[in-house]
Amino acid sequence: MVKNYRLVLAGFGNVGRAFARLLIKKEEELRTKYGLTFNVTGISTGRHGSAIDQDGIDLVRALVLVESGRSLNELNKVVHGESTDAFIKACHGDVLFETTPVNPINGQPAIDHISTGFEQGMHVVTANKGPVVHGYQKLTELARSRNLHLMFESAVMDGAPIFSLFREPLMGAKLLGFYGILNSCTNLLLDLMAEGKTLEEAIQYGQSIGITETDPSNDVDGWDASIKVAALSTVLMLHPLTPQEVDRTGIRGISPNIIREAAMVGEKWKLVCSAGYEQGDFKAKVAPQRVGADSPLYSVNGTSSFVVFTLDVLPGLGILESNPGPETTAFGLLADFLNIVKDAN
Amino acid sequence: MVKNYRLVLAGFGNVGRAFARLLIKKEEELRTKYGLTFNVTGISTGRHGSAIDQDGIDLVRALVLVESGRSLNELNKVVHGESTDAFIKACHGDVLFETTPVNPINGQPAIDHISTGFEQGMHVVTANKGPVVHGYQKLTELARSRNLHLMFESAVMDGAPIFSLFREPLMGAKLLGFYGILNSCTNLLLDLMAEGKTLEEAIQYGQSIGITETDPSNDVDGWDASIKVAALSTVLMLHPLTPQEVDRTGIRGISPNIIREAAMVGEKWKLVCSAGYEQGDFKAKVAPQRVGADSPLYSVNGTSSFVVFTLDVLPGLGILESNPGPETTAFGLLADFLNIVKDAN
Repeated sequence: MVKNYRLVLAGFGNVGRAFARLLIKKEEELRTKYGLTFNVTGISTGRHGSAIDQDGIDLVRALVLVESGRSLNELNKVVHGESTDAFIKACHGDVLFETTPVNPINGQPAIDHISTGFEQGMHVVTANKGPVVHGYQKLTELARSRNLHLMFESAVMDGAPIFSLFREPLMGAKLLGFYGILNSCTNLLLDLMAEGKTLEEAIQYGQSIGITETDPSNDVDGWDASIKVAALSTVLMLHPLTPQEVDRTGIRGISPNIIREAAMVGEKWKLVCSAGYEQGDFKAKVAPQRVGADSPLYSVNGTSSFVVFTLDVLPGLGILESNPGPETTAFGLLADFLNIVKDAN
Repeated sequence: MVKNYRLVLAGFGNVGRAFARLLIKKEEELRTKYGLTFNVTGISTGRHGSAIDQDGIDLVRALVLVESGRSLNELNKVVHGESTDAFIKACHGDVLFETTPVNPINGQPAIDHISTGFEQGMHVVTANKGPVVHGYQKLTELARSRNLHLMFESAVMDGAPIFSLFREPLMGAKLLGFYGILNSCTNLLLDLMAEGKTLEEAIQYGQSIGITETDPSNDVDGWDASIKVAALSTVLMLHPLTPQEVDRTGIRGISPNIIREAAMVGEKWKLVCSAGYEQGDFKAKVAPQRVGADSPLYSVNGTSSFVVFTLDVLPGLGILESNPGPETTAFGLLADFLNIVKDAN
C-alpha cells in the first residue's frame, strides 16, 4: 500500500532547496522502497514570496523561480496571510520541514513556526539548532501531547547521524561526555591560516566561497560551536544548556605565527568543543586547542567535523563527517522524514 | 508493565562472561527504563559444562565457577544431551545469545546453533561473524518466516553501532563503498613494530596480553579483516561475499625497516580494508598501506578501529571505536536485545 504525504517547506534557502532536489532525485525510490508518495503543498521563503497548492507544487519550477531571483507567489493557489505562521496554518500538511535561519539568542521565530506546525497536526522536521536549545522541553512536550514527532538530525553535523544514533543503536548506553570539532567554518579558516593567511584574509576567502557569513562573528567567536554543544548536552545528556552558558573562546586570538609555532612540533590549532561531568560538575567549553597527529581531530580538515562520545559502555565512539554540503543536510531531513513514516506505520 | 525474558547464553568465553556482567550491572536500569526483567535459563560453555534452570541461573555463581576453572554442571537442573544444539532445545528461552568461536571457513557450528534457536522460537543475537558471511541469506529467511529477529551488531567493530546505523539512522541512504581498519590485533602489532619489535616479538607480546591468539594466522594473514569486509559487503551492500573472495594480503611482509622508512616521511603502515564498485566491478581488498597524518586512519592506534562509509547522500561518514574490550562487545549484544524488545512491543 502506498501512502501519500503532504509536505510543507518553511524556508527555501540552500538547505530547503537541496532538500527539494533530493526529494526529486529519490521520488521513485521512496515509492518503491518505502511505499510513500508526496506532494509539496506549501513553500515559504524569506525574500521570494510563498506558494500553497493542495495539488502539489511543481518543485522544479519552484527551484527555477527562486534561483533566478523571482517570486514563488505566481505558483500560489490559496490566499493566505503574509507571516510564516499564517502560511503554515493555510497549508494543511502532514509534515513541516523548518529550515529558516538560526537565531542563537532565543530560537525565534522558529520555535513559533514549529509550535504552529504541531497545532495544525503536522509532524515537524527542522535543521534549526535554535529551537533545540531554546525550546526543547516545551516543543517535545507539545509534540508528545499530540502524538507527533519532532526531529532535528540536521541541527548538528548536518546529515551525519547523531541524534538518531542515540535513539536505537545506542539503547542501553549512557552518555558521559563528548569532545570534537563541530564548527565547519572556523575549521576551514584555521586551515587557511595554516597556509599563511591572516584571519581577515581567511574570512574574506571564506566569504567568497560562501562558507563564511557576511558577519563572521557567529562562527569566529564560537557561537555556532556553543549552540551545537548546548544542543548535544540538552538532548543527549538531558542537561539543558543555552549557548550563553558554554565557556566560550573563539579563534580571534589565533595568529599565523602561533599556528607556525605549533606546526614546527607537528601540531595544529583546532576549535575544540567539549562537555561532560568533572568531579560532579557539568562543564561545557569551546576553545582553541593544539592537537597532535595522534589525536583523531588532527586529520579533520576543511569543513569536515568530528565528535567523540564517551559512554558508560563504550570508552570512545567517534563520528566523522567529511566534506559536507547542503545536500548532506538535506539527507538528514529525509532520514528524519522516513523515520516518522516508519513509526507511523 | 514489566515483561520477563528468558535468556540463553550459548558460549561463555570472554564475551559471554562480559555480557553476563553487563546484565548484572544494568539489571535495575533495564527494569525501570525499559520495563523488562530477565532470567538466564541456560548457559553452555566449550570446556566448562553447561547448565539449564528455568527459575534462572545465578549469574554471579556461574561466573565464579567458570573463572575458577570449574564446571557449570553443578548448577544444572534439566537433563539434556551433550551437544550445544541439544542444550538449546532443552532451554525454553526467548532470546539466544550466540558467542561461540568464529569459524571463518564455513561459519559452523554457529549456523546450526542459530537455526536451532529459531526452530525453538527464539530471537537470536550473535557476536559471531561466521554465520553472517556464510549463512546470512538462509538465516535471515528462517528468522523472517518465523517472525523472529537475527541481530549481530557485535560481529564487526564490537559494540560500535554499524549494522544498526543502517537500519534507522541511515534510512534513505545507499552505501557505495567503505574503507578502514577493522582488525584490532594487527593494528596493535604494527604499533609494536613501530617501536622496534620484529613481527615475531610483537606477536609474542600480543599473546602475553591476550590480544593475539595462539595461532596468529587468523589476524596476521588478514583472515579476520577479510571476514569483516565480507560481513559488511554482504549485509550493508547486499553483495554476498565470502572471506575467501576478498583480495587478501596480511602483514607478514611488513618489517621494522619499512616501518622506519615510512616514519621518516611522517607516515605509518596500516592494514587497510576496502570494498566498493570500481568501473562497475565489485572489489574487496585487505592489504597493508602507508597512510599520512592527513588520513583519518593515521591516529587509529592500538586496538582501536575505524571505518569510513561513502554513501550516495553523505560523501564520508566515519565511525571510530577507541580502545574496545570484551565489555564493548557485550554492549553490542545488549543493544541488539533492547532493539528486539522494542520491536516486540
